[in-house]
This record gives sequence, C-alpha cells and structure tokens, in this order.
Amino acid sequence: MKAKIYVTLKPSVLDPQGKAIHHSVELLGFEQIQDIRQGKYFEIALDSQMSETEAQETAEKIARNVLANPVIEDYRVEIV
Amino acid sequence: MKAKIYVTLKPSVLDPQGKAIHHSVELLGFEQIQDIRQGKYFEIALDSQMSETEAQETAEKIARNVLANPVIEDYRVEIV
Repeated sequence: MKAKIYVTLKPSVLDPQGKAIHHSVELLGFEQIQDIRQGKYFEIALDSQMSETEAQETAEKIARNVLANPVIEDYRVEIV
Repeated sequence: MKAKIYVTLKPSVLDPQGKAIHHSVELLGFEQIQDIRQGKYFEIALDSQMSETEAQETAEKIARNVLANPVIEDYRVEIV
C-alpha cells in the first residue's frame, strides 16, 4: 500500500521560490503563465498488511506531524 | 486553467533526503513504514484562453526544460 502526500503553501503565504521559477520561465519565453507555486510531494510505502483506514490514519499523522507545517502549509493525503 | 506537475527521482536513483525523513519518522514511533521518497510538486496557473492541448504542451515543455532533470528525474503533468 502506498500513500501520496502533497504539501502546499497556504494561498495567503508568499512563495518566493515559486516567484523565482515564474521569472525564469518567463525569461525562457513562456508567456501565458500567470503564476507558479512550488510544493512538496512524498511517496510513502506502507506495510501491505495495513488496512486502508489504518494507512490513511498513519499517513495523515505523518503529514501533520512531520512533513507539513500546519501554520503555513496545507496537505492532502491519497492512498493508492 | 491549471497544470499540476509532479517531479520524482527515478526509482534507480538514491534519495538521501527521503531516507533521512524515513529515519526521523521511525524515531517518532511510526513502525509500518517501508520507504519514503521525496519529490517536488508545482502548480502552474495558465491563461484561461488556452486550449487543453496547448496547456498540456506548455506544461510538458516547462516540466522537461525547467522543473525536472530528465537524467535522474521523472515527471508527470496533469491539467485541471
């Protein structure tokens, strides 16, 4: 069982890294871009004996406690 | 129109950052984790006049030329 976790900055938080990428992309000639924001992506391989509910709970706990900073970041967990 | 781009290390490439996270997560008491790999995630806001095909092409080009290093990384593009 695999968990995919997406961590993104909250919309109200400035993203200087994304702005820098946006600027570079514009310099390279891509013109129809309005905004780029960078986030993080994690793939967690979980024990295959875990049930889907357990996997979801474990992944959510790891996302909340370790991978994301809930003050400035949102996270989304997907079990596949 | 929005493009979501996921960049991950190829499976054959070592991921020391993921290994470090795996170790921390184990120290925190999560035991049923087999592996963690870290990737990058980008959200690109594209001009709303673009067609879906144009959006897909632009996003693929940006992913290939700017956001991913095709030698060691894979990327996946999703238009929403």
